[in-house]
Amino acid sequence: MFNRIFFIAIIIGVPLSVIGSLMHWPAVLLFVIYCATIIALAGYMGRATESLAIIAGPRIGGLLNATFGNAVELIISIFALKAGLISVVLASLTGSVLGNLLLVGGLSFFIGGLKYKQQKFNIYDARHNAGLLIFAVVVAFVFPEVFSYKLNDADSLTLSVWVSVIMIILYVAALLFKLVTHRGVYQSEHDVAHGDETAEWSKWKALIVLALATLAVAYVSEKLVHTFEEVGRTLGWSEVFIGIIIVAIVGNAAEHASAIIMAYKNKMNVAVEIAIGSTLQIAMFVAPLLVLVSLFFEKSMALVFTLPELVAMVLAVFLTISLTSDGDTNWFEGLTLLAAYLIMGVGFYLL
Amino acid sequence: MFNRIFFIAIIIGVPLSVIGSLMHWPAVLLFVIYCATIIALAGYMGRATESLAIIAGPRIGGLLNATFGNAVELIISIFALKAGLISVVLASLTGSVLGNLLLVGGLSFFIGGLKYKQQKFNIYDARHNAGLLIFAVVVAFVFPEVFSYKLNDADSLTLSVWVSVIMIILYVAALLFKLVTHRGVYQSEHDVAHGDETAEWSKWKALIVLALATLAVAYVSEKLVHTFEEVGRTLGWSEVFIGIIIVAIVGNAAEHASAIIMAYKNKMNVAVEIAIGSTLQIAMFVAPLLVLVSLFFEKSMALVFTLPELVAMVLAVFLTISLTSDGDTNWFEGLTLLAAYLIMGVGFYLL
Amino acid sequence: MFNRIFFIAIIIGVPLSVIGSLMHWPAVLLFVIYCATIIALAGYMGRATESLAIIAGPRIGGLLNATFGNAVELIISIFALKAGLISVVLASLTGSVLGNLLLVGGLSFFIGGLKYKQQKFNIYDARHNAGLLIFAVVVAFVFPEVFSYKLNDADSLTLSVWVSVIMIILYVAALLFKLVTHRGVYQSEHDVAHGDETAEWSKWKALIVLALATLAVAYVSEKLVHTFEEVGRTLGWSEVFIGIIIVAIVGNAAEHASAIIMAYKNKMNVAVEIAIGSTLQIAMFVAPLLVLVSLFFEKSMALVFTLPELVAMVLAVFLTISLTSDGDTNWFEGLTLLAAYLIMGVGFYLL
Repeated sequence: MFNRIFFIAIIIGVPLSVIGSLMHWPAVLLFVIYCATIIALAGYMGRATESLAIIAGPRIGGLLNATFGNAVELIISIFALKAGLISVVLASLTGSVLGNLLLVGGLSFFIGGLKYKQQKFNIYDARHNAGLLIFAVVVAFVFPEVFSYKLNDADSLTLSVWVSVIMIILYVAALLFKLVTHRGVYQSEHDVAHGDETAEWSKWKALIVLALATLAVAYVSEKLVHTFEEVGRTLGWSEVFIGIIIVAIVGNAAEHASAIIMAYKNKMNVAVEIAIGSTLQIAMFVAPLLVLVSLFFEKSMALVFTLPELVAMVLAVFLTISLTSDGDTNWFEGLTLLAAYLIMGVGFYLL
Repeated sequence: MFNRIFFIAIIIGVPLSVIGSLMHWPAVLLFVIYCATIIALAGYMGRATESLAIIAGPRIGGLLNATFGNAVELIISIFALKAGLISVVLASLTGSVLGNLLLVGGLSFFIGGLKYKQQKFNIYDARHNAGLLIFAVVVAFVFPEVFSYKLNDADSLTLSVWVSVIMIILYVAALLFKLVTHRGVYQSEHDVAHGDETAEWSKWKALIVLALATLAVAYVSEKLVHTFEEVGRTLGWSEVFIGIIIVAIVGNAAEHASAIIMAYKNKMNVAVEIAIGSTLQIAMFVAPLLVLVSLFFEKSMALVFTLPELVAMVLAVFLTISLTSDGDTNWFEGLTLLAAYLIMGVGFYLL
Repeated sequence: MFNRIFFIAIIIGVPLSVIGSLMHWPAVLLFVIYCATIIALAGYMGRATESLAIIAGPRIGGLLNATFGNAVELIISIFALKAGLISVVLASLTGSVLGNLLLVGGLSFFIGGLKYKQQKFNIYDARHNAGLLIFAVVVAFVFPEVFSYKLNDADSLTLSVWVSVIMIILYVAALLFKLVTHRGVYQSEHDVAHGDETAEWSKWKALIVLALATLAVAYVSEKLVHTFEEVGRTLGWSEVFIGIIIVAIVGNAAEHASAIIMAYKNKMNVAVEIAIGSTLQIAMFVAPLLVLVSLFFEKSMALVFTLPELVAMVLAVFLTISLTSDGDTNWFEGLTLLAAYLIMGVGFYLL
């Protein structure tokens, strides 16, 4: 059903995006069209990546998922960086972290928990991920922020570049650990049995879909970024709110849907892996990569979030770790995460 | 023995409170009389609530305990709010959180630990409570604080109201989870066997005692609140110190005593439930309710603590969670909590 | 092999230190000679303490290790205090905490993990230590800092003195807990079997070596402290960087080496005990003792770190606890700790 809706959305959305932007339709209308089109295209990119991952086997497949899993977010952010919208990029990174941990995690636990009294997932993965969340969000994000108060802008950027390089190296090491040296050591039976699935599309079909959808996402993202200012003015939203809530939801819609479906099917390992794994990918790979990419643009981006953004992410990490450390979820834990997301949403809306 | 002392204290304390306030006795003397009377009355309210809870059965009983458990604190705070003493109210909320976690928890673990080498309690409850402590104190208290630096006063109050409503809803959901949907799922045998107890008083006796004691507490609290300023001036204490240490101890004295008695009887589940459960009640029910009540008074109260108060509560939560996460206590863990309480007491005294 | 190198280093280093300081050699050269000599002398002090500990039996032995384990750091710091270099002392305390948790812990886990797929250690000790780390670094260090913003200097020092006295009492209580009341209750078989070892040196030889080495360390430390300013100017390092990285490494070099050797021999309990136990000794004994000692000097030292120092220590504690809470390590966890150390090193270098 999703697939058909996405297909129709693309068939209609892409041409509408082109026409609308040429004819200078109102920004809010264009904004809605662009968002819907990107969500649909992201669904196709996800299916293509999934097919390629199954064909390539677990190692290369894991690598593919780890690199292309947040491609849409990356593409939108690069265009926003190019347009000099650094605070929007930082806000949308924040929004992705909050959205994955609190909204996706919360909805998965809550909806899954309405059907099942208790849902279990691999506790080793949860602990491994907890360590990485502390490293990425708490250590690597907080540190440049605290030092930025005492450093000049050039030194602050130098520190951000160092932090970014170290994070990408550690992200690669984490893949090596998970896919090579300790494959199966901590994994649950589910992940090991993952290889049984059959790919939806053939290798070439998947590659072509991936290429075309990526090109289309890039085209629409570039247009989308330029609507932020006017949409914000028209609707009374700050650019930060657009970044933190809207871009984050658009950029991650496809994953959100599949995590909740997995929770509903009681495949809690997969739901947690999507929510937390995707957060780690954003924090340890997309964010540092954007810092490095921004060095080639006019305005470079230091990894220095605003204090509310940073605090929100750190609190989300502590809450998630505290609720997932026992390897067991229920509807109330989901509701707690959603309550935290709602509080943060109100806060950023008022800002 | 406690009961007889409380009985005598009420028989003498209530008339003395009336006479003393009419005759304008020195503030410090009145302050002492009021405090002693409230402690004794609180003891009676606790016994009445307990009797009603047993008669009403575990579900309604749990609800009664969850609503009336901190009635004294709530009454004192409402009169303080009415008198415009917002910083005293915030301080006494802080003091209740610190007192319950560090002083009650610490004394229970320490005194229980002198008698027993290791004391165990339900690890599921501990984890459930840990998640809620992180949500309530770390997320819901820190967030409005951080945002208050960037918001104007009206928006800051709006955020506090939203946070308060969300917290009360989540508190009700937590009761629903504990008393209805997941009753017995995570509970230890003790809690399930709780229904065997017989009520001390009949339904009508309990209701009448509760009504009369509540009225008397309200009367004395109103008088007590108006002594703070002069007591502070006379003894060289700040109003914040009075709120954080004195009001918090007076408002929670009855619970403090019973938690320690339970620990001494090796009923560690109950002791922990009192210490942490009462903290959650303060943070997720009393504090947000006070924010909402304050909207009807001249000065409204935003949920914005001072930085030392907030940091003290967050540190207390992290220390408590770290010490209770293994479901096992000893005298040294109690001493650690008491050491933290002492450090904080000195800090707030010097402030 | 280490022993022979240390022997040669002392035979050459001590006379060179005397001659060099009399002849006013360049500061950087002297700095290197002093550092090498202290590392070698520290090795001898460690061996003497270890021999005495074995001879004296586990209780007095544990006490000896707990008091003399960081003697070198203590001596250097006292001379730095006497020279009024308070910020260097605070920096070197920070450096010891970071070095022990992240560098020693990280190298142990990483190098041990290259040889063994998974290394296990006593989970009870890990939890006991986690609670103390939260108490010492997070509660007792953060609290005076936050209050220092609102207190005048005299009150801030008073709070530091109170915190210091409470920490030392709790440190003594922790020894009582570990060595007397709960000996063997939580310990692993390794620690219980510790008594089998034979001492390297006789009691008198150990005492004489300890006395002579301590005297020599004191002499060289006093010289070392006075080179900081010129070395900093020559190499472009801030005094804080010298304190945080160099003094911390020199003061703890001997322990660093033995922790890594223990990890390589798969004696993970000992490696963790050195890394975390030494951190606790610094935080709960050396730091508060220095505060009390400083009261007799011209400039007293409040326990108020700079914000970057404090944040770095708190983050290191959270990361360490998160990675060690499962009682199991691997190369990737080691690499994560090292990555955090590197990020912090870069940050403090730029400061």
